[in-house]
Amino acid sequence: MLHRIVDFSVRDVRFPTSAEQHGSDAMHTDPDYSAAYVVITTDSKVQGFGLTFTLGKGTDIVVCAVKALSGLVIGKFLQDIVGDFRGFYRLLSSDSQMRWLGPEKGVIHLATAAVLNAVWDLWARTEGKPLWKLLVDMDPKQIVSCIDFRYITDALTEEEALDILMKAQEDKQHREEQMLKKGYPAYTTSCAWLGYTDEQLKQLCTDAFKSGWTKFKVKVGADIEDDKRRCGLIRHMIGPQNTLMIDANQRWDVSEAISWVSELSEFRPLWIEEPTSPDDILGHAAISKALGTLGIGVASGEQCQNRVMFKQFLQAAALQFVQIDSCRLGSVNENLAVILMAHKFRVPVCPHAGGVGLCELVQHLILFDYISVSADLHNRMCEYVDHLHEHFTCPAIIEKAHYMPPKNPGYSCEMLESSVVKHQYPDGEVWRKKIA
Amino acid sequence: MLHRIVDFSVRDVRFPTSAEQHGSDAMHTDPDYSAAYVVITTDSKVQGFGLTFTLGKGTDIVVCAVKALSGLVIGKFLQDIVGDFRGFYRLLSSDSQMRWLGPEKGVIHLATAAVLNAVWDLWARTEGKPLWKLLVDMDPKQIVSCIDFRYITDALTEEEALDILMKAQEDKQHREEQMLKKGYPAYTTSCAWLGYTDEQLKQLCTDAFKSGWTKFKVKVGADIEDDKRRCGLIRHMIGPQNTLMIDANQRWDVSEAISWVSELSEFRPLWIEEPTSPDDILGHAAISKALGTLGIGVASGEQCQNRVMFKQFLQAAALQFVQIDSCRLGSVNENLAVILMAHKFRVPVCPHAGGVGLCELVQHLILFDYISVSADLHNRMCEYVDHLHEHFTCPAIIEKAHYMPPKNPGYSCEMLESSVVKHQYPDGEVWRKKIA
Repeated sequence: MLHRIVDFSVRDVRFPTSAEQHGSDAMHTDPDYSAAYVVITTDSKVQGFGLTFTLGKGTDIVVCAVKALSGLVIGKFLQDIVGDFRGFYRLLSSDSQMRWLGPEKGVIHLATAAVLNAVWDLWARTEGKPLWKLLVDMDPKQIVSCIDFRYITDALTEEEALDILMKAQEDKQHREEQMLKKGYPAYTTSCAWLGYTDEQLKQLCTDAFKSGWTKFKVKVGADIEDDKRRCGLIRHMIGPQNTLMIDANQRWDVSEAISWVSELSEFRPLWIEEPTSPDDILGHAAISKALGTLGIGVASGEQCQNRVMFKQFLQAAALQFVQIDSCRLGSVNENLAVILMAHKFRVPVCPHAGGVGLCELVQHLILFDYISVSADLHNRMCEYVDHLHEHFTCPAIIEKAHYMPPKNPGYSCEMLESSVVKHQYPDGEVWRKKIA
Repeated sequence: MLHRIVDFSVRDVRFPTSAEQHGSDAMHTDPDYSAAYVVITTDSKVQGFGLTFTLGKGTDIVVCAVKALSGLVIGKFLQDIVGDFRGFYRLLSSDSQMRWLGPEKGVIHLATAAVLNAVWDLWARTEGKPLWKLLVDMDPKQIVSCIDFRYITDALTEEEALDILMKAQEDKQHREEQMLKKGYPAYTTSCAWLGYTDEQLKQLCTDAFKSGWTKFKVKVGADIEDDKRRCGLIRHMIGPQNTLMIDANQRWDVSEAISWVSELSEFRPLWIEEPTSPDDILGHAAISKALGTLGIGVASGEQCQNRVMFKQFLQAAALQFVQIDSCRLGSVNENLAVILMAHKFRVPVCPHAGGVGLCELVQHLILFDYISVSADLHNRMCEYVDHLHEHFTCPAIIEKAHYMPPKNPGYSCEMLESSVVKHQYPDGEVWRKKIA
């Protein structure tokens, strides 16, 4: 059965999370977790849902960009899109006039992510499979045909990518069963946002510990004394055998990052996340080199703009943990490229999640990474934040600090229509009240 | 006298240049040169004009982003802005919620450029000086206070910047007089757009040669045989002593760039511009290394997103020519940072221009670079393209292939109101006719 895309909508949906300091860090002091939310409908009445994540103000700009891309989607047959997915990715990401606005970065790339996420959701639904399973069952040649290798062939060729996928066919079935039974390991960021008090932090950490969490991330970077106190508090509560990570959200310059994190080394963080500008490959390399001697790795990726940047972070040994994001990169297509490059460079993928919908989406990608690419769980885990899941029709399910593989067809990004209507900006009920 | 910004407007202005293949290259086959055009008005009735350049489709997205930033500008006093210009730059470029859309890249940074260009224009007008002269006369300490050094201190500290400016005070007066008399050297890109026929190319090249042009840039990258024929044709016409540059507009992957340009080395291009992705610092470094042995430099910058990227291009010896852009970076503020870093790394600045308004704007920056920073003209020249100048109230003036310093107060980006009205998209007369 053919599926022709006949309708396309995009809405500006915002949640007033800043009111309670959820999501606050050293650079983003008052985020209102938001999304540009896309729904595409085919003539066969199947729908695809997609989104990209934002922090409130400016979501309207992304909505505007999504609308500009919609003309490249409406009227197309799903089969034609996925039959030449590399070509369709190129069409969206390298339109002769619009590529000036990026290319493949910032607003226009966030918009590309929202549109392509909806297309992947649609594809998985028409196949009756959750997205991770669609990918796991897909012929390696077809997977490779979804990837645009432009600008990355000096790090990964199509042949190398195919070779990686072919080798990982072995024991795939076993790993899939393992995931269905035990799930994929997760860590929590819910306990230690920068705006939380010590009391909040203690309470949340105690509760999480009781629920089976063993890996905790703390926001740092605003004040060194606060950071020492908070890291000490958490390290004391979780004990020496569990995992602590710290996240500075781009707060420092290179030398400041090195000295600040060195001062926190006594708390033995596994990684320092986003120590400096997400654009600074050579800076991250210098920080990696300096902190490597202290046993601390560098993690980044939630604001890494595209596969060309990830390629260089890997080439320069600038990251020890690759944090892919389901909404920053050009959807599944570009994430596949990054997952395969990370494998080649032997760097673990530990996805960024949280926000709104990011956990729902990225769990599919990391399941694919484990089952079909890396076959490895050492030093690998997926971020989890316990916010806003109630707005999704198929929220992420955590059991004993593990993501349990989604079973419903699609990419898990369908929101409850009632939530969308209520939180639409600026006309939804929630915002009408706030603005009044 | 105080100047409070009380009114702010932004318009989507597009010129249908694609109809005649002006501006066509290997990646941008049909550009409609366009701008998001900003006018700010103060309570003292002084106005500031600013723009950012785009290629047609998607200009509305930038307009939307400019509107989102306008709230940070309206109501402010010019004196407060320029009294803490670093702080104001940071306010615009790192808003806690909107920085997620960049940070400092793509649509949101193009919008920042448009807004800040208007502020600089306003400032220069209130001082009764052309912008280059405002900068040249400015106290080095104040210049440095306009720059956000975040993320670049590992390459250039505030003290080093000040030191560079102080040293260049010597003989400044002499260089200013020299510029006023002879102007700043330019090269032309008008002769050899990719969509032009050989006949067009020959005619335009002959005409330009007669008018005193000695430096020519050719678009390459679509077909190697075409490139050889076109480069041969121009090299034959201009003779061995004049300068040929080639521009691939990001067409290749790294190894392809090296082999393709090697095949063109017989035509002795001074540089290959944008051989690959503008994001690929390490790729440019590899290309620079390979082509350096053939005496060909690498140039890039028109799509280099911010100072953090330029910093790394310099640190990695990935560029031999730094092509600043007046509308891609965060206005004068960020260009000052790049100009000073380029000086420290001893790499010549050869600005990108053309499009609509880019020549008018960037001439101010390169005059400042020569008079107050580099004091050097070796291998330095500013791009010139002879299009669309008629729409500006103070168009760039070229004499004997040199930019003559503007004399009117401001940053030269005021457009004729009649041109703006006629070319507004989609309601201006030009577009109403085209669309009908």
